[in-house]
Amino acid sequence: MDQLRNFGFLLRDVSRLHVQRFEQHAKELALTLPQCKTLAKLEANEGVSQARLAELAELEPMTMVRILDRMEADGLVERRPDPHDRRARQLYLTDKARPLVAEIWRLADETRGELFAGVSLRDRKQFMAILARIHANGQALAAQPGPTR
Amino acid sequence: MDQLRNFGFLLRDVSRLHVQRFEQHAKELALTLPQCKTLAKLEANEGVSQARLAELAELEPMTMVRILDRMEADGLVERRPDPHDRRARQLYLTDKARPLVAEIWRLADETRGELFAGVSLRDRKQFMAILARIHANGQALAAQPGPTR
Repeated sequence: MDQLRNFGFLLRDVSRLHVQRFEQHAKELALTLPQCKTLAKLEANEGVSQARLAELAELEPMTMVRILDRMEADGLVERRPDPHDRRARQLYLTDKARPLVAEIWRLADETRGELFAGVSLRDRKQFMAILARIHANGQALAAQPGPTR
Repeated sequence: MDQLRNFGFLLRDVSRLHVQRFEQHAKELALTLPQCKTLAKLEANEGVSQARLAELAELEPMTMVRILDRMEADGLVERRPDPHDRRARQLYLTDKARPLVAEIWRLADETRGELFAGVSLRDRKQFMAILARIHANGQALAAQPGPTR
């Protein structure tokens, strides 16, 4: 029971430690966490708008603009005109960015590997399956109007 | 692999959904999350100072003072003089507060039960054991000077 009551604290603190460790690694690439999120989300969603990418990366739109300006100047990101909307731009990674995104994923995998050290592959999979189940339960509860008794 | 790469997002989002659901329940007691944390941490640490309780509940000292002023006025908390330090006060729960703290724990258990719905007791225990292991690994990594390669 006492161990279960640690659930909220452990979730939050593992999340914090995971981010902190990833950020330590990302310094090797001279990248911040928001920059890494931007590149990783863009890789999976090429052609998106700036506004949508900000949502996906969970960044403020103004932060996104600054990050993209810098990345465009560094030749990592391209803003192409949207063929369906003259005022809009679609975002794409450049070929120069792709190895960097691969490095980000490598560091993410390495960070996760460090956190799961000593946990067997079978147990990792089971852990992730339960975490996904808890997440689905949490989403279903959030969609309800409120607790009933 | 893709499922494992969801680790960071799922941790953070489960943590958010867990807090959100607990707060929904806590409204039944007309309590906010900081108030619940204050009472639960005080129950486990009677005799502490205000400053230490703020740390334990992860609240700003000024927020703690406001919460304690209100709880003292409501007869839930007592500030007694510290016998070893004339200027300091030690904090205690009143008898009136104890059933309320029991209710907070009941709601915390209920919230966790809702999130773990469909997960067997055995699987919950294994999940918590792995979460504790990951947490210990994360703490050990944080105590290192930085990634070495």
